[in-house]
Amino acid sequence: MKASQFFVSTLKEAPADAEVVSHKLMMRAGMIKRLGAGIYNYMPMGLRVIRKVESIIREEMNRAGAVELLMPVVQPAELWQETGRFDKMGPELLRVKDRHDRDFIIQPTSEEVITDIARQELRSYKQLPKNFYHIQTKFRDERRPRFGLMRGREFTMKDAYSFDRDVATATVSYDAMFAAYQRIFDRFGLQYRAVAADTGAIGGDRSHEFQVIADTGEDAIVYCPTSDYAANIELAEGVALLAARGAATQALTKTPTPGKSTCEDVAALLGLPLTQTVKSLVLATDEKSESGDIIKSTVWLLLVRGDHELNEVKAGKLDGLKAGFRFATVAEIEDHFGCKPGYLGAIGLKKPVKVVADRTVAQMSDFVCGANEADFHFTGANWGRDLPEPDVIADIRNVVAGDPSPDGKGVLAIQRGIEVGHVFLLGTKYSKDMNATYLDETGKPQLMVMGCYGIGVTRILGAAIEQSHDERGIIWPDAIAPFSVVLCPIGMDRSEAVKEAAVRLHDELQALGVDVLLDDRGERPGAMFADWELVGVPHRVVISDRGLKEGQLEYQGRRDAEASKVAVADVVAHLKARLKA
Amino acid sequence: MKASQFFVSTLKEAPADAEVVSHKLMMRAGMIKRLGAGIYNYMPMGLRVIRKVESIIREEMNRAGAVELLMPVVQPAELWQETGRFDKMGPELLRVKDRHDRDFIIQPTSEEVITDIARQELRSYKQLPKNFYHIQTKFRDERRPRFGLMRGREFTMKDAYSFDRDVATATVSYDAMFAAYQRIFDRFGLQYRAVAADTGAIGGDRSHEFQVIADTGEDAIVYCPTSDYAANIELAEGVALLAARGAATQALTKTPTPGKSTCEDVAALLGLPLTQTVKSLVLATDEKSESGDIIKSTVWLLLVRGDHELNEVKAGKLDGLKAGFRFATVAEIEDHFGCKPGYLGAIGLKKPVKVVADRTVAQMSDFVCGANEADFHFTGANWGRDLPEPDVIADIRNVVAGDPSPDGKGVLAIQRGIEVGHVFLLGTKYSKDMNATYLDETGKPQLMVMGCYGIGVTRILGAAIEQSHDERGIIWPDAIAPFSVVLCPIGMDRSEAVKEAAVRLHDELQALGVDVLLDDRGERPGAMFADWELVGVPHRVVISDRGLKEGQLEYQGRRDAEASKVAVADVVAHLKARLKA
Repeated sequence: MKASQFFVSTLKEAPADAEVVSHKLMMRAGMIKRLGAGIYNYMPMGLRVIRKVESIIREEMNRAGAVELLMPVVQPAELWQETGRFDKMGPELLRVKDRHDRDFIIQPTSEEVITDIARQELRSYKQLPKNFYHIQTKFRDERRPRFGLMRGREFTMKDAYSFDRDVATATVSYDAMFAAYQRIFDRFGLQYRAVAADTGAIGGDRSHEFQVIADTGEDAIVYCPTSDYAANIELAEGVALLAARGAATQALTKTPTPGKSTCEDVAALLGLPLTQTVKSLVLATDEKSESGDIIKSTVWLLLVRGDHELNEVKAGKLDGLKAGFRFATVAEIEDHFGCKPGYLGAIGLKKPVKVVADRTVAQMSDFVCGANEADFHFTGANWGRDLPEPDVIADIRNVVAGDPSPDGKGVLAIQRGIEVGHVFLLGTKYSKDMNATYLDETGKPQLMVMGCYGIGVTRILGAAIEQSHDERGIIWPDAIAPFSVVLCPIGMDRSEAVKEAAVRLHDELQALGVDVLLDDRGERPGAMFADWELVGVPHRVVISDRGLKEGQLEYQGRRDAEASKVAVADVVAHLKARLKA
Repeated sequence: MKASQFFVSTLKEAPADAEVVSHKLMMRAGMIKRLGAGIYNYMPMGLRVIRKVESIIREEMNRAGAVELLMPVVQPAELWQETGRFDKMGPELLRVKDRHDRDFIIQPTSEEVITDIARQELRSYKQLPKNFYHIQTKFRDERRPRFGLMRGREFTMKDAYSFDRDVATATVSYDAMFAAYQRIFDRFGLQYRAVAADTGAIGGDRSHEFQVIADTGEDAIVYCPTSDYAANIELAEGVALLAARGAATQALTKTPTPGKSTCEDVAALLGLPLTQTVKSLVLATDEKSESGDIIKSTVWLLLVRGDHELNEVKAGKLDGLKAGFRFATVAEIEDHFGCKPGYLGAIGLKKPVKVVADRTVAQMSDFVCGANEADFHFTGANWGRDLPEPDVIADIRNVVAGDPSPDGKGVLAIQRGIEVGHVFLLGTKYSKDMNATYLDETGKPQLMVMGCYGIGVTRILGAAIEQSHDERGIIWPDAIAPFSVVLCPIGMDRSEAVKEAAVRLHDELQALGVDVLLDDRGERPGAMFADWELVGVPHRVVISDRGLKEGQLEYQGRRDAEASKVAVADVVAHLKARLKA
């Protein structure tokens, strides 16, 4: 393609509202253009990347036996009422009424519609397994859209849904999708990690996130460099860091800690390691009547080691907290502990409190905790002697780098990642709500077992840039670059030789199926180079009169420190060797 | 592809709500599945056709120098308020509020958004001309969605927008799009006609509709078989059918015509040809104050020959009617004519009425018209003698087959058509409203001149089927068929020879790039043939043990009356010769 027939539009400065580097670079490279909060035009340069991403996804989904269809953007509310999501989902579900005042939604995903298709179309066990997918515009009315395509409101997603006879075959379907996702992300040329994820409220059996590695990622990815273990921080299992509880060696001592309400401050004041302190977090659960009034509230004290953080997802899986919890109010805290927050502990409670100790805390001895009296802590606290054994011992903390891997095969490391894909064994959640059954060999209706598999198509662009850029701009992997090769002729308008060589190389590469752009805009070399470094085209060839006189062109890979000279006759072979996709 | 890896779902009967043949056949062939009124899932079989249509459009748009981008489905209302369309458009514009109570629309087209892009991106005359297009989901909240994909609410449209310096260059852009559309529709393999269309309220310079010919089409297409003339019925020019006005030969005579209120009845009663009668239509226009109150109304009498029909679009272009008209009320008619409708005429009016005569009526003599007295008509009426010359003489009727072509090169014929494409020279309507200017050579801002160019992607499917089907099902042209060739092996599960031959032929055709489907579902031959005739695959090869013993396969084109035997060794060459796309 020639640049004059395309649309190149770069900016020197990113708009002020662009907060992250991928957003800034996509705006500057003319890939996207803001239309409203979280709503972008995909400009020609950006659309080329999207199409390449979609094309790789489509090929691998088809190869894995999934069948493409297309479900509508505007969907009737009825199906969403069948699963209850029409009411349960928050304002992120964009609801709209048509001219007849009937309710519709703008789809954020399509579980309901695909399940409706499946319950009509898949009637017999002979038709299973089946996996349908579509690549379609989605909308989520984020409260605070930001970061460009990373957290937009309108976006493109590939969502696939598998239907199976039972969990065993559904697991096969799940594994096939997992493998397809690995091929997809391999082909993108991105560094990524598939990590086990929490199955959350849906409570399916398996769930993995595909995370693109990037220092700026919102998610913490936990992995073991010496084994296969990988999970997101919500799920990664924290083992007890003490093999057994040590014997008590100190007396319980109430110590003044005026104004020191954090473990860090207390440890510093007392000259003790932070790992000797215990952090108190107070939650509450409410029992409600049928009319929704609170009948009874229970207060919970969750204890993690001073250097650890509570993992709310893990806490939310405990019996008694599963149905939902909240942080306790100051009034509730004072009522139960007789003390304001900052000096709380499990010793000398005024009213009954359910005490949950993290696995590590349960093994601690001679520890420091709040004395339930403002400006005082205890040192030398010991389970069984100074306070009762905890009601519950559980893994309720975030793991930290250096923790033993739960598979026993090394220690954990933590990376930042951007979630761009998710595979999930849904089970019968939707098929139960919507009565999606098939007839088994005996003619008996059985619920279909479902899986769902998403890839954030437009988010891939943001994640790829967060992973790979420099001070000059984007560095695309070959497979999803807007163009694989850019030809930069110098003085094409003045030199017939340059023009002829550039056009010939362009035509030859194009005939070979190379996605090549000839920059015939007539820009100065500096501006031309800056544009293509900003846009991030992985391979550049400069054609100049001086070079041609020596029979040479200049090649530079986007990651190369400097250009290298290549004989005119060798340049196609050179490019073919360098092109990975 | 193998059918077992795809999704084939046919129905014996169409659902009761499918009114037209294309809707019935698409439902029966499993191409679409209804989700709500005017909202369809595009099932795998239908999506394949859509993708082929899109792909042809994309190739030809790119070849014509248009650049693809993608504008959002959900668009902020602000831009639509700039052009006033947010308020002016009726309830077919789906309006929605986000969580912050801000107004958005679900796009029916994208003039506003593309003009917003253009006014930011196209700053200099050097950047013009430019043509941007996208292929995107659209929504129009039709009051009565029907006919499947012919008048759906959610649909896919390709819309392109050209930006030019002036009308001269915009006309070049328009003509390039016109030529691209001809290539696109040629490649689809559909019978179509490009017809001149009315430019309507927007009042641009040029407009053509691309109509797929089908007896069931909603539109009447006027054309001259012996010249290039083609226009839609709204625009097609009606010439005077009488070269000059004849001399009066009869006296004006009031004749009783009791109960005969139509020209047909009066002509029959009087034993005169219908072409001797004049039909009266009474319109009214209102002059309004700034507050919208009616200050003054004017009554108009429009006269067409008894066998002709009023063309309201043409009437709406007359001075005095341009700003809008309505049909007069019975009270207004009685007030001005002293008579109820059915017996009206221009002779002996009680109050001033503006009289508009069609070109043919203005040349008539000795004609029959209402006497402005219930149950009476005049015969022998003559302009100038019995009533004043008309205030206005104009073309205000629909042409009929057999009329002289306005280019003088033959007589007109009329066909039915389905509008699937529209090219329109918009002029500066949107650029003026949105102040979309570029700087000319002198640095002076000038309004961009726009064109817009649409193709109803999903509507193409309906139109193609309306044009081409039989009692067994759809007959797709090669280029947009879901599969080009279907291989039907008989007894594949029993015969290794059949299986081996079928798989070999499948693999060979696939390697040649032929879009082939191998039906490995194990259906009975009758059911298998019926399915593929219903789906409309253009080429079928049957592989059977009996045939293989004779070294032959059976080929049948979808339009062929019967199958023909082809030697196994020749079948690929035979197919290649038959395949048009």
